[in-house]
Amino acid sequence: MREKRRVVATGTFDILHPGHIYYLEESRKLGDELHVIVARDANVRHKPRPVIGEAQRLRVIQALRVVDHARLGDPTDMYRPIREIDPAVITLGFNQHFSEDQLRAALAERGIGARVVRIGEYSGDPCSSTRRIIDRIIQTRGGT
Amino acid sequence: MREKRRVVATGTFDILHPGHIYYLEESRKLGDELHVIVARDANVRHKPRPVIGEAQRLRVIQALRVVDHARLGDPTDMYRPIREIDPAVITLGFNQHFSEDQLRAALAERGIGARVVRIGEYSGDPCSSTRRIIDRIIQTRGGT
Repeated sequence: MREKRRVVATGTFDILHPGHIYYLEESRKLGDELHVIVARDANVRHKPRPVIGEAQRLRVIQALRVVDHARLGDPTDMYRPIREIDPAVITLGFNQHFSEDQLRAALAERGIGARVVRIGEYSGDPCSSTRRIIDRIIQTRGGT
Repeated sequence: MREKRRVVATGTFDILHPGHIYYLEESRKLGDELHVIVARDANVRHKPRPVIGEAQRLRVIQALRVVDHARLGDPTDMYRPIREIDPAVITLGFNQHFSEDQLRAALAERGIGARVVRIGEYSGDPCSSTRRIIDRIIQTRGGT
């Protein structure tokens, strides 16, 4: 019996939009089982803190058909869940701040053999990033 | 062979949150198949226009495991898709502006025999309404 080919996708997923769904669906196609690691509030440091709390962001991701398993990230070691899941592939979203090479080097250092794949941008959608959605909310509602 | 008991849930679903998931999951429990009617941009008149366009709101709803079928509402006659789906039950969310009695009367007038059920509020979640999420975005980000 062949072992299931696990894929890991990661993200904050603050305010779910079709760009997220596209990223997860493309990730899922690279294997048999999609595991999603949702960033903890305290670990989102390279951009503004999420608007929606970690427990709720996790709950929404778990409700997606394309997602087989979802969990919050580790509070201190982002590689711990990856070691536990032992994926064949780890995907990066088009606007995730990690470079493929950075991530490959970090995985190699830790003896994790997963392939790293960058998923392209979902096109044809004016609301395909949380940043743009938040900007639009502030533009259209913030001045009232 | 018993016919499937269809349930219709409706909403704008602008910025998906666990309150929406709860509403859809509770609705799904009332039958065998959940059909969701997503409000068209032009038909959202009782509250501010949605931040996220109708095609993207539909796409996100279709990606949920609990949803069997989803479609946009009819541009002019909100009862047309209900007649087509012919549901056993129609659910209302806790903050939907229709009263049960209003909706029952409107359905009876049109010879639609569905039962109307109001789903209660999802509790224990500070971000369980789109209004509150938008307020939080404006409070925390709008001033910068």
